[in-house]
Amino acid sequence: MNLEKLIIMNDIIKDLQKKINADLKKIYNSGPISLIKTFNYVIEGKGKRIRPILTLLTSKSLFENYKKSYKAALAIEILHNFTLVHDDIMDNDSIRHGKKTVHEKWDPSIAILTGDIMLSKSINMLSEAQYNQQVINSFNQALIAVCEGQALDKEFETKKEVSEEEYFEMIEKKTSHLIAMPIEIGALSYDFPLKNTKKLFNFGLNIGKAFQIQDDFLEIMSNPKIMKKSLDSDILLGKKTFPIILCNKKDENFINSLFKKYDNVEEIIIELKKFIKLHKIDVEIKNKIEQFYEDGINYIEDINFKSEELLNFVNLIKNRNK
Amino acid sequence: MNLEKLIIMNDIIKDLQKKINADLKKIYNSGPISLIKTFNYVIEGKGKRIRPILTLLTSKSLFENYKKSYKAALAIEILHNFTLVHDDIMDNDSIRHGKKTVHEKWDPSIAILTGDIMLSKSINMLSEAQYNQQVINSFNQALIAVCEGQALDKEFETKKEVSEEEYFEMIEKKTSHLIAMPIEIGALSYDFPLKNTKKLFNFGLNIGKAFQIQDDFLEIMSNPKIMKKSLDSDILLGKKTFPIILCNKKDENFINSLFKKYDNVEEIIIELKKFIKLHKIDVEIKNKIEQFYEDGINYIEDINFKSEELLNFVNLIKNRNK
Repeated sequence: MNLEKLIIMNDIIKDLQKKINADLKKIYNSGPISLIKTFNYVIEGKGKRIRPILTLLTSKSLFENYKKSYKAALAIEILHNFTLVHDDIMDNDSIRHGKKTVHEKWDPSIAILTGDIMLSKSINMLSEAQYNQQVINSFNQALIAVCEGQALDKEFETKKEVSEEEYFEMIEKKTSHLIAMPIEIGALSYDFPLKNTKKLFNFGLNIGKAFQIQDDFLEIMSNPKIMKKSLDSDILLGKKTFPIILCNKKDENFINSLFKKYDNVEEIIIELKKFIKLHKIDVEIKNKIEQFYEDGINYIEDINFKSEELLNFVNLIKNRNK
Repeated sequence: MNLEKLIIMNDIIKDLQKKINADLKKIYNSGPISLIKTFNYVIEGKGKRIRPILTLLTSKSLFENYKKSYKAALAIEILHNFTLVHDDIMDNDSIRHGKKTVHEKWDPSIAILTGDIMLSKSINMLSEAQYNQQVINSFNQALIAVCEGQALDKEFETKKEVSEEEYFEMIEKKTSHLIAMPIEIGALSYDFPLKNTKKLFNFGLNIGKAFQIQDDFLEIMSNPKIMKKSLDSDILLGKKTFPIILCNKKDENFINSLFKKYDNVEEIIIELKKFIKLHKIDVEIKNKIEQFYEDGINYIEDINFKSEELLNFVNLIKNRNK
């Protein structure tokens, strides 16, 4: 992307974020005080709104308009936030987007309920906007997938060996469905032909996988000040991220030996980075990311986009460093 | 109800329970092992299946048939179980239907996810069965209400004064909607006129309130061997049940004085019972229950039922002692 395009895309994204943020604030303002407070606390977090933007830019790139998919896009962002609130409890994460998580600031009970009301509201928004059955099905399938993906992620924590295939299945459910569905719904809201919608969905599944592997990689390799996520808790929980799986493949005792040798997580991470570079695992990971992006793009080769906004946005995600 | 009718009703209920139980087992059998296990553990609990039976008997009493509402009835039971699993975490209850709760037998994370997948599955079942928009809306409104009711219930734990009106609002959301919606959907599935459906809904809201007050009352007054619920935890959490609210109304310092005077919960409960009888609070509660049942029945006076099964079932619930 050249500089001019980049500036235009940045403006488009900022405008969408602004609009989405303003409308998210209007969703839940009457009900029990405890829920209104936590719901809006979460919604006012500094999320990048990637998923609703994917929906809107899919509609825009195909139909030069996103009016029909706009309410679904908001519902998708609420759904995404439901998963964050519940996942943060399960993973015992205390910070999200630079703010205390709900269970940390309040308590786990209200965090469970906050997730529940977010999920309920998102479903109800979609139903009240009277979307077609395809949109509803796509949304529901992604919802089930994301719960199952999180369950697999938790199962893997206590599983010694997790294969690359098992990992890909897990992130496809946990992450990719919540990337593929927003794109699909951007098309389904306009009754786009099902055959082409399926292509968009598969594009989404692949870039979703690339996206998650990038996340796993950046978490370990980047400067901790850039990547604010909780690598410590991931390592301590025994999360099977892609770099960890490849390290295990190279030497199944390596991670365990680190825990025996070092007391603090920082030292473990330093040694982990060395091992990754020594064995060129970083190159292997980068190639995998590139491959998933390419596989994704291949799916949509023969779709006629009226503008390049969706693809430009995906490119921006691809080239992010945090 | 005479003895003959009672025997017939018991048979009808047992048959429905058997059918429902068999079909609930077929709902979730492929997915992550951890979720399949917990989902079916919950589903195989000894629930009375009151909510799906309300749906089916509403359909049967109005249309001599329940084919159209059957899938919704199953979805409703799954939805109800979602609320139980999450509520048990929040209320720290360790036993449900004589079995360990999910968070107690496994851990809170898998219990959160079990609830999430139950909710997701129930929504998806309803959508896949292609119910009309009224059915979907009724389901979604009840879902939102039940989350909000639970939030109010939690808010009240730390609130010193809760009025009767606030309590009624709370139980209407927490309990009544999950009684009124199943009845309403038993009619809406058959495109019953909306005006009459609203009457059925209001009937349900009222008997739901009677039902919850009965629960609160039985929990304190009955032999602990009959009522297996966790009264201890309710009292210790500071739950504002109807008897507690009426005791507070009679003497705002009474409950606090019990906590100061006695160390163990059993003694507190004995004193509480004495106070309730002394001040005829038991009579007041029984009258309130009777009044809500009557108010409910009044709503459906002019509805033409083809059989009495729904009303007989509600009568059985009314006359339960556990």
